[in-house]
Amino acid sequence: MKSGLSFLVGALRCEIDELEQLARTSELVATIGRLVHALQRERGISNVLLASRGQRFARQRDEQIAECRQLEEAVRLAFDQLDAEGRVVGNGARLFSRIAWVLPGLAALPELRRRIGALELDAGRSTAAFVKLVAGLIAVVFEAADGATDPEISRRLVALFNFMQGKEFAGQERACGAAAFASGRNEAARQQQWLHLIASQEHCFQLFTEFAAPGLAEAWGALQSPAQLAEQERLRRVACAAPAGVALDSELSQAWFDCCSRRIDAMQSVEERLAEDLRQLCMQKTAQARTELQAHEALLASLQDDDGGTADFFLDAVAATDAAPGPSSLAAGAPYGRQLERSILDMVQEQSRRLQAMGDELATVRAALNERKLVERAKGLLMAHRRISEEEAHKMLRQTAMNQGRRLVEVAESVLAMAEYLPADKAS
Amino acid sequence: MKSGLSFLVGALRCEIDELEQLARTSELVATIGRLVHALQRERGISNVLLASRGQRFARQRDEQIAECRQLEEAVRLAFDQLDAEGRVVGNGARLFSRIAWVLPGLAALPELRRRIGALELDAGRSTAAFVKLVAGLIAVVFEAADGATDPEISRRLVALFNFMQGKEFAGQERACGAAAFASGRNEAARQQQWLHLIASQEHCFQLFTEFAAPGLAEAWGALQSPAQLAEQERLRRVACAAPAGVALDSELSQAWFDCCSRRIDAMQSVEERLAEDLRQLCMQKTAQARTELQAHEALLASLQDDDGGTADFFLDAVAATDAAPGPSSLAAGAPYGRQLERSILDMVQEQSRRLQAMGDELATVRAALNERKLVERAKGLLMAHRRISEEEAHKMLRQTAMNQGRRLVEVAESVLAMAEYLPADKAS
Repeated sequence: MKSGLSFLVGALRCEIDELEQLARTSELVATIGRLVHALQRERGISNVLLASRGQRFARQRDEQIAECRQLEEAVRLAFDQLDAEGRVVGNGARLFSRIAWVLPGLAALPELRRRIGALELDAGRSTAAFVKLVAGLIAVVFEAADGATDPEISRRLVALFNFMQGKEFAGQERACGAAAFASGRNEAARQQQWLHLIASQEHCFQLFTEFAAPGLAEAWGALQSPAQLAEQERLRRVACAAPAGVALDSELSQAWFDCCSRRIDAMQSVEERLAEDLRQLCMQKTAQARTELQAHEALLASLQDDDGGTADFFLDAVAATDAAPGPSSLAAGAPYGRQLERSILDMVQEQSRRLQAMGDELATVRAALNERKLVERAKGLLMAHRRISEEEAHKMLRQTAMNQGRRLVEVAESVLAMAEYLPADKAS
Repeated sequence: MKSGLSFLVGALRCEIDELEQLARTSELVATIGRLVHALQRERGISNVLLASRGQRFARQRDEQIAECRQLEEAVRLAFDQLDAEGRVVGNGARLFSRIAWVLPGLAALPELRRRIGALELDAGRSTAAFVKLVAGLIAVVFEAADGATDPEISRRLVALFNFMQGKEFAGQERACGAAAFASGRNEAARQQQWLHLIASQEHCFQLFTEFAAPGLAEAWGALQSPAQLAEQERLRRVACAAPAGVALDSELSQAWFDCCSRRIDAMQSVEERLAEDLRQLCMQKTAQARTELQAHEALLASLQDDDGGTADFFLDAVAATDAAPGPSSLAAGAPYGRQLERSILDMVQEQSRRLQAMGDELATVRAALNERKLVERAKGLLMAHRRISEEEAHKMLRQTAMNQGRRLVEVAESVLAMAEYLPADKAS
């Protein structure tokens, strides 16, 4: 017959389990970030190789592939550790499902690289392949952020996720611009996509700034040299503001690529700091919770381990209340007075309030992830009702967004608003 | 080096873990429901004993206490089992914290009963003690509902929670009315509280109807005999519609008590059906998931256990997409055509979509629990800023609700809307 004490301690143990799990997930996220960065570089290098029909960047590509292979091993090992632990706190099923999607993509890399080396693919398809793989890796980070059970850590993960996503948009912009300049001419469709990539990128960094730990948002701002920003904006203007069909100076291709790369490498250094900050926070929180647990256990050992001692307190508390506390009286907090300061009930109430406050805060942070979920749902709806692939669904939404000059999530919301007019057999 | 297959299976195992946990939690909820019902009866009987200065219901009380003791044992055992399993899926910490609060309340029962037997308490304080304990037990059910990870089971738990809560309001109305009739006179404050209990009760049953499994809401409707409802409404009118200060026929006290008790016993039979339905659903879902897991394992065993086989598919899928799938391309679903029907990617995508749809559905169901959380938050705010107990905070909210003829949650929302005008050191 266990007492309230053991459940008070049990609750703390649950919290520690979750914090330790979060620490492991955060390590995984950092490892994924490094692989993503390396793949983004390989994507860019491969494009130059393909665009130059194999004349340029062959050696750089070999070096980059070697680096990617090492980082891929690290990610695979982190995945395996996760699985070895078996059950994952929170959304284990969704996290594993994302991983299951990514692994075939990693397995496809050697074949992708062979085809690129043999110049069997054009830059567009090579980019699409890398984009898809990177999206899968970032999706794992998203689930990690969505599954976090500690609000502070969740904030950091949301910031990191948005930074990674923004960095990926920047990488896609680099590829898009490099292709535009290299082709020597401007096309309306590509301009439109380019502008869309800029907007999505800025939105991500705005969310990052909102959720990043104090100091880190500033660190990112400080790393962007005004001169370089000016140069990038100038090249953007040259290519995007000019009327479609205008010829572009293909010599600018290299300048554009270098300019973007400097910015993206700066992002990577910020990302490393974000990951380190996250790691520190997890360790610190786990240590803190452990100390609390020990303090509780010591205190509880000093009290007799049954609830009899608190019976009178409970009754006093009751007697002190002259009305039914009503429906939502959970860990009811009547004023027990000094004689109860060390009582279990006080500790339980304190814990209960803390857990409640954490839950509220967590809900607020998670709301920031809803945009992405809305887009997912809108796509699911279109896929189910139009019998189209996810790419097609996403293209539809993005096209509408670009045509109407609205954000992707706004279009998604409009689509979902129509959901009830559609038959009930919809996918989401 | 694990393959996508093992993570696909790992995701399914996570789901099964969660379903098995839900099955155990559901059993716990059913056990709690029986104890709550017995305590509600003991509360009513104790009031009659106290009101009659020990003349009436002494024997019934002994029998009722014996029944309560048995059911209390069952609940304690269920708690212990939960703890023995260690980590609980979802909100384990909050669930344990609620249990830690309830146990001292149970430990206080013998002393409470002694004081009642010795007529040392008045009916009001005796009621308050039982109300507080029952509220703590129902709070455990709330956490169970809030922690459920399967939308269908979550719906059932939300329905069951609201039914239990409504039943508790009905029990409080029984006590309130019995005291009013017994006292032989009508008071404005009590009338107001009485009407508030009726409104809260109806709101709970409305939510129950909304979330109950098909057939069970109807079953509840069918169980309420029109004649009895008419009688109860008549007695309500006699006591509440009459101007305050009017004398009440104290003979009606028994009639009122019996009328309410018949209705509450009917509720208990419905509650048993709800619990049984929930148990069935959990078993069925777990069996279903197990079959799926076996099917997957069998299928996967027949495929080579590495992702190489899917590499080309992945590339084909890529090649089939002529645009970057963009930010939210998670388990991207390009049309692979028949040759891929049995591929891992298809299975992963199917699983990923199902998990996503489940997540969306779950969010919708949980929204129904937000009202209670809003009230909790508003109370936390008042407690922190006015340095008052939870009972006092709840009384303030309820008083405002009654004065303004608004629902408790509406008042809570108004309070929370002011939150940002208050200093930052607030509790929630």
